[in-house]
Amino acid sequence: MMAKKDFQKEFSDFMLKAVSIPNVISFAGGMPNPISFPNKELKKAYSFVMDNHYKTALQYANTQGYIELRKIIAQRYKSKENINVEADDILIINGAQQGFDIISAVTLNDNDNVIVEAPTFLAAIQTFNLYNAKIHSVEINDKGINLDELKNILKKYKSKLFYTIPNFQNPTGLTYNNETRKIIADMIKKTNTILIEDNPYGALRFKGENQESFFNLLNEQVILMGSFSKTISPGIRVGWIASKNKEFMKKAIEYKQILDVHTSMPDQMAIAQYINNSDFDKHIEKIRKLYHKQCNAMINAIEKYFPKEVKYTKPEGGMFIWVELPKNIKSVELANETIKRNVAISPGDPFYNKKRNVSTFRLSYSNCSVENIDKGMKIIGETIDKMLKSK
Amino acid sequence: MMAKKDFQKEFSDFMLKAVSIPNVISFAGGMPNPISFPNKELKKAYSFVMDNHYKTALQYANTQGYIELRKIIAQRYKSKENINVEADDILIINGAQQGFDIISAVTLNDNDNVIVEAPTFLAAIQTFNLYNAKIHSVEINDKGINLDELKNILKKYKSKLFYTIPNFQNPTGLTYNNETRKIIADMIKKTNTILIEDNPYGALRFKGENQESFFNLLNEQVILMGSFSKTISPGIRVGWIASKNKEFMKKAIEYKQILDVHTSMPDQMAIAQYINNSDFDKHIEKIRKLYHKQCNAMINAIEKYFPKEVKYTKPEGGMFIWVELPKNIKSVELANETIKRNVAISPGDPFYNKKRNVSTFRLSYSNCSVENIDKGMKIIGETIDKMLKSK
Repeated sequence: MMAKKDFQKEFSDFMLKAVSIPNVISFAGGMPNPISFPNKELKKAYSFVMDNHYKTALQYANTQGYIELRKIIAQRYKSKENINVEADDILIINGAQQGFDIISAVTLNDNDNVIVEAPTFLAAIQTFNLYNAKIHSVEINDKGINLDELKNILKKYKSKLFYTIPNFQNPTGLTYNNETRKIIADMIKKTNTILIEDNPYGALRFKGENQESFFNLLNEQVILMGSFSKTISPGIRVGWIASKNKEFMKKAIEYKQILDVHTSMPDQMAIAQYINNSDFDKHIEKIRKLYHKQCNAMINAIEKYFPKEVKYTKPEGGMFIWVELPKNIKSVELANETIKRNVAISPGDPFYNKKRNVSTFRLSYSNCSVENIDKGMKIIGETIDKMLKSK
Repeated sequence: MMAKKDFQKEFSDFMLKAVSIPNVISFAGGMPNPISFPNKELKKAYSFVMDNHYKTALQYANTQGYIELRKIIAQRYKSKENINVEADDILIINGAQQGFDIISAVTLNDNDNVIVEAPTFLAAIQTFNLYNAKIHSVEINDKGINLDELKNILKKYKSKLFYTIPNFQNPTGLTYNNETRKIIADMIKKTNTILIEDNPYGALRFKGENQESFFNLLNEQVILMGSFSKTISPGIRVGWIASKNKEFMKKAIEYKQILDVHTSMPDQMAIAQYINNSDFDKHIEKIRKLYHKQCNAMINAIEKYFPKEVKYTKPEGGMFIWVELPKNIKSVELANETIKRNVAISPGDPFYNKKRNVSTFRLSYSNCSVENIDKGMKIIGETIDKMLKSK
């Protein structure tokens, strides 16, 4: 199963190595800011669980996940985002990333067609490749996705899955508007394709208005992926998948049981305890404000330091800005140059299934101070200038 | 991938349903006794981590696992069991069960041959079937395993894996003696087969002497699986695989990274903190004494209440006794009768890959009081008597 060459993995290793240099200013990772870690409240929550519910927390538990936590997630979907998720629709997993494996194992056979955005989250590409899927990429744009391309691919190939990150996408920061979502939902309804709506950043909107969830538009044809990684902690591995498709959920739970029985109960129970006993919305608001400030600082720095020919996205939430260099400058070469001056970026290549030597790259503003953003962006700007001159 | 009928799963569901009846005396599950849950010490440990190391605990972490925990595991292998494991040989996973998936994904192709004990742990059968392995079963006995059968299968089929639980096996409670281990190691050395040494109960020896680990006998041809589920908590999903085979470990870590990035850091760090700051050996000794007492109570009850024709194992540790009924009484029928009187047992069937309608069954003494053991065993004895008379 593991015979294939994993381009995405090689790239991650390369970037991780770069980022581990001391004093590097890193815009490369997708790390939440530690401001999002409510350690004092979590301490109380773990303590409460160990004092009062330890016989449940420390024993084997059911695979689907702690019912109180599933109720909280469902209730928040309804009250905050008007999404009709029930506790029974949810399977708790070890971070949303485990969802790729579970969904693939349950739905895919060798050579099945899968549609992804181009660019997209690299772990999705890795998993679909691991399951020997045929990956078809559709270009993402500032309204959502290239609808003609999507239509053609849906027509040409019976596709099992269409994987989307409709809010503040990783890596581009782009968001699908309501109109595009409705058109896509109508297209999908005419097929047997299941749409995966990955929404790890949805709560981190700092501008504009929430757009409608595919979960409401597509009923049994959608699987929602969610996570506390960006609002509480990625070190605690608690995420979920949710679907109204009973047959899929039954198989997903069976597979998860074989995979690792269930997700850590102290973690699930501590998160439930924390959300029920603190002002979680206020905590999220604090993260939103910080990321908004840092995003603005990064956009200001682009306008100040980058040549005018550079194109970039203006996210309304999340953690990422996507930049396109002029004159076919390769972003890998830019990354190799900036790291010499202790600034790390993510070249665009690993976010594509096949495209290489691209001119796009990802910047993350989530885990950098405004000062470091200015300092690092200046260096990137100077480096681009130098490369442009030598062209 | 999930198309196959999963006999083991159907059986587990049936048993879980039986066990959920209120006031049932259950010898069916494999649940540790809550006495093994050091909740007060864990509370301190989680609190310490959240106060002092929260930026590490709550952020994304490296896939291989928390280095301090890996050092503790390696050091304990050396000092307690004289097994030469280094921190670098270890990959931390979400409970040892995740090891089945990781090992299978990394080593198996469709139709590869895998050898298991008969009977064996049902989750192993499930995973190997999921990966479309050809499963060959070798009968377990009171010295270890039927060596002639093993020799024949190794000769006849190039086998990728040989899965063993050499200490207080699940479901039989049997242990391989040193002589058998050495003979098996010599056989394996002549092949390219990798031996999986699953040892979740090894620390729970309450009688006799430790036998030599395959890890020392087989060097790069062995993968060790271990867990804190039976000594600290199964609700905290922290286990590990360990191997000197560098190529295997590299692939295993890569696969785990795609699977779920890493295992919960608060859990890993709290366990490390707990072991470093309490008398873990004393804690294990407490569990051993309790299980010894309960095991003795169960054996006394067998001798008191079961007909003389019944055969059973006498474990030197762990959690299980394996019973064989006379005159081809089907253990499924026995289980269906005893549950009517609120006593649950595990029929032997799901512990075999293919054998059905067997006369063997598993009893677990770990999570029952001495009083309930006597009460429940009396009912099983009466039921067997009744079934024997109607034969």
